[in-house]
Amino acid sequence: MSKQSPSQQPGLVLWFTGLSGAGKTTIAHAVHERLRRDEISSAILDGDTFRQGVARDLGFSDADRSENNRRAGEVARLFSQSGMIVLAAFVSPFRADRARVREIIGAANFVEIFVDCPLEECERRDPKKLYVRARRGEVAQFTGLTSSYEAPLSPEIHLRTDRLTVDQAVDRVLSSLFSVADFRKL
Amino acid sequence: MSKQSPSQQPGLVLWFTGLSGAGKTTIAHAVHERLRRDEISSAILDGDTFRQGVARDLGFSDADRSENNRRAGEVARLFSQSGMIVLAAFVSPFRADRARVREIIGAANFVEIFVDCPLEECERRDPKKLYVRARRGEVAQFTGLTSSYEAPLSPEIHLRTDRLTVDQAVDRVLSSLFSVADFRKL
Repeated sequence: MSKQSPSQQPGLVLWFTGLSGAGKTTIAHAVHERLRRDEISSAILDGDTFRQGVARDLGFSDADRSENNRRAGEVARLFSQSGMIVLAAFVSPFRADRARVREIIGAANFVEIFVDCPLEECERRDPKKLYVRARRGEVAQFTGLTSSYEAPLSPEIHLRTDRLTVDQAVDRVLSSLFSVADFRKL
Repeated sequence: MSKQSPSQQPGLVLWFTGLSGAGKTTIAHAVHERLRRDEISSAILDGDTFRQGVARDLGFSDADRSENNRRAGEVARLFSQSGMIVLAAFVSPFRADRARVREIIGAANFVEIFVDCPLEECERRDPKKLYVRARRGEVAQFTGLTSSYEAPLSPEIHLRTDRLTVDQAVDRVLSSLFSVADFRKL
């Protein structure tokens, strides 16, 4: 159980979007760890976990992906309303869905982070062996191959994870985060 | 944004169940306020808010109520996994659904609180004027009138809110909560 300052400020949602294998979850966990060292609480919302729980009833059609994103946005909002920093790692391939999440959260508390890595590199990494399975035709509507990914046009943070180490990516995220936090006089 | 102890223990879910007007939300907010005074963070998950967000696509059929409860349980689990004390106020009329929530959260972290008030008293209070509307036939499948409420058989805490003040109810909840917290050496 956690202690916190009694003045409950609205939190922040850091929304990591990008292809499978781009590094969303890895960076989210690394940010979480760094924040924890500074005794700042944050919560990770991970797309895979989310699909096993809140969105268990949904598949991967465009409509279901949209609904998955909507629910994720709503849950992120609940967390941020409790004063948490939310690290949300979702492929969230469609611009309109991310725009809706921004609306649900409120633009002032929403930071879109484009975890950008070329498809070839994601496929080379293939940490969950999903690309291999998708190429074999075992995974339908796989983002980047058989379903489109609409890259953010003006994300708050743009990370080229084929060129940055995880630590460098985390530094970028935190410097941006603390400039917001500073502004709020935390 | 909040600071907390870096050791993230699994939180607790206090699940308030009972008829509309029994006092679930009132007591949840009062517990939240008392915890805040002790600098203990907690988060409120309120059934009404939840239905406007995560469960916006659901109605009030038995199947939709079950799905609403399932999602609420999953979201409460996400919160508790972040080390939060979750104050969840949901009518949650069906025993099987509450049993499922207990399973989702894990029995060790789940506290079922029966906010028990006779229907007549709830109807007399009618804070949201829902009973009036339900009697007029304007609200379909209204728990207590046209849809059943299955009272808990062995809740961890049983509050007779027609006989207790809000403060007395909060005392009962907190003494039970702190005995758990003490046990965990918080």
